[in-house]
Amino acid sequence: MAVEVASRKLCLLYFIASTKTSTIPGISCAGATPEATLFTPALDVEYLVLGEPKSKREIPVTPEGLPTPAVITRAALSLMGDPMMVVDAGSYIEPRIPHVDLPSRTVGGRIDVEPALPRGRARELFEEAKLLAYMALPRRCAVLVGESMPGGTTTAMAIMEGLGYRARDRVSSASPNNPRELKWKVVSKALERVRGVDDVFTIVDEVGDPLHVSIAGFVTGALEKECIVILAGGTQMCAVVAILKRLGVSYRGRLAIWTTRWIVNDPQSDIVGLLRDIDPAIPLAAARISFESSEFEGLRMYEKGYVKEGVGAGGTAIAAMIRLGMAEETFVKVVEREYRRLLEAKIAKDRGVE
Amino acid sequence: MAVEVASRKLCLLYFIASTKTSTIPGISCAGATPEATLFTPALDVEYLVLGEPKSKREIPVTPEGLPTPAVITRAALSLMGDPMMVVDAGSYIEPRIPHVDLPSRTVGGRIDVEPALPRGRARELFEEAKLLAYMALPRRCAVLVGESMPGGTTTAMAIMEGLGYRARDRVSSASPNNPRELKWKVVSKALERVRGVDDVFTIVDEVGDPLHVSIAGFVTGALEKECIVILAGGTQMCAVVAILKRLGVSYRGRLAIWTTRWIVNDPQSDIVGLLRDIDPAIPLAAARISFESSEFEGLRMYEKGYVKEGVGAGGTAIAAMIRLGMAEETFVKVVEREYRRLLEAKIAKDRGVE
Repeated sequence: MAVEVASRKLCLLYFIASTKTSTIPGISCAGATPEATLFTPALDVEYLVLGEPKSKREIPVTPEGLPTPAVITRAALSLMGDPMMVVDAGSYIEPRIPHVDLPSRTVGGRIDVEPALPRGRARELFEEAKLLAYMALPRRCAVLVGESMPGGTTTAMAIMEGLGYRARDRVSSASPNNPRELKWKVVSKALERVRGVDDVFTIVDEVGDPLHVSIAGFVTGALEKECIVILAGGTQMCAVVAILKRLGVSYRGRLAIWTTRWIVNDPQSDIVGLLRDIDPAIPLAAARISFESSEFEGLRMYEKGYVKEGVGAGGTAIAAMIRLGMAEETFVKVVEREYRRLLEAKIAKDRGVE
Repeated sequence: MAVEVASRKLCLLYFIASTKTSTIPGISCAGATPEATLFTPALDVEYLVLGEPKSKREIPVTPEGLPTPAVITRAALSLMGDPMMVVDAGSYIEPRIPHVDLPSRTVGGRIDVEPALPRGRARELFEEAKLLAYMALPRRCAVLVGESMPGGTTTAMAIMEGLGYRARDRVSSASPNNPRELKWKVVSKALERVRGVDDVFTIVDEVGDPLHVSIAGFVTGALEKECIVILAGGTQMCAVVAILKRLGVSYRGRLAIWTTRWIVNDPQSDIVGLLRDIDPAIPLAAARISFESSEFEGLRMYEKGYVKEGVGAGGTAIAAMIRLGMAEETFVKVVEREYRRLLEAKIAKDRGVE
């Protein structure tokens, strides 16, 4: 779908939400502590738009201190200047930037001990996000959808398993040590609530989260407006495809997943296998950027399996390179410039001299 | 600016907010009762998007039972299908449709007895709305901005007077009997708080409302993205121009007001005089639609000075006619069809048979 992304009007959307599943110790690296993961989505998009977070004065980092992949996304956006929008499907805190609110937005429950959503909410979120696409998208544009929701690979696994696909040990992690046993323990407890359940919205209500079903609704509306859609994300986006397929949405030839090579080459997850099982006709592309020889430790860590993807990093990077005709090495320089800015701002802040 | 609206990408935005000024008995006709006016903005945009209000099952009406001018806007939007968005700058209730939230949104105070906004809020709303334009608008598009905020002509009068323009007896009303003495009583009390004040944001904080300054911020961002901007509204939009002019925003040749002939020909207000004083170079256009020979009493009342304008009715109608090359008489038929649908839905509801 590179031709369409190069030639059509491009609209970039970043969906955010929280699931309390991310507060289970050890399950998510998208925050310095389990509780901090609840703030990450809002801080991610504040940083994306403003260049610094606003609700708290902290860039979201992993427990090791590695900054959010939104660094890559922001570098890519800085090159394009195309219309972008943030959509809140259930962030724990309201982001302090202009953003679209879905009226039924809600923080997702901790799926090992409680339903993800109040009964009926998944369908409401789907319909609201579909309506948003009808309202806000120009006809026949190219749409790129990224996301930020810590805990999302775990709920994505539960959604896919609930829909009958083998997702155990196949979703990725922001850690080089994917906590696969812990994720499966959480998911298998959640799945007990949907034995024999066939309805996709009920499955999402029980074991999912507010994010993936909202993205699925938005994609459905975008396709009805004759747009092509790029899902910019890793293994989580396979859950969106699984929802769309179960709903019988007609997406053939107009839907793709764009991610990073750190996801595609990850030995501890299997996006290729997931997609093969769900729909082998969905094109998968990976940004070939490498930080191997970066001067920054925090970027070189990507090559050791840290962070990998998030906030639409891979897909937004591909879109920027395609639209600008930019080589991967040049794009890496832009990321490094943004990373340096961030580091210097952070150092200045730590010293209290900003 | 008809050429640009016909040829460029068009983005339609409807800003909503509430001011408690609308609850002063007699000041606003945009609701069945003074308290009901607080709900009108959310119900207006719910109806605009869904075809029926959702937060309450009541179409906003005047005390005489005349429905919202959003009937005209909805008819016009149904012809175009261009991207549209609702922006909440401070609605009393959250609209039950996807909408953009400005983080600093707040209901405006009753300006005869209290400040309109917490100190500093006007500037925050301005900056947030400007950021929204940067984020969400494509470069070089045509932007149309409508609004719904009962009490808005009164706060607009206060803003313009606060900025040194004579606005007394010059703003319009949804009633054929414009309560000009009451409006002036409210405004003159408010103005006591800004004697000698020169700063535009302080003036808005004290005697304005959340809406007009947000629209001014959005327009500023849109102009910086090389867009042309149509302010779709009546005398209120002169307050937006007054704010922009005081801020030194460069809008020459790229900003216009589009409204209805019921506003331009209103003997009880003076949009032409207001614009002549604020900036005579701003083009003013009026939709020449006439309901004189309509079969519907509720539409014929427009010709007797009821309703007149609101929710971007006049400007959206002009945009639809220009973009479709549609004659005014044909467009009136589309409005009548929508009005009939509304009436039949309402009758069905009153009978309890929906």
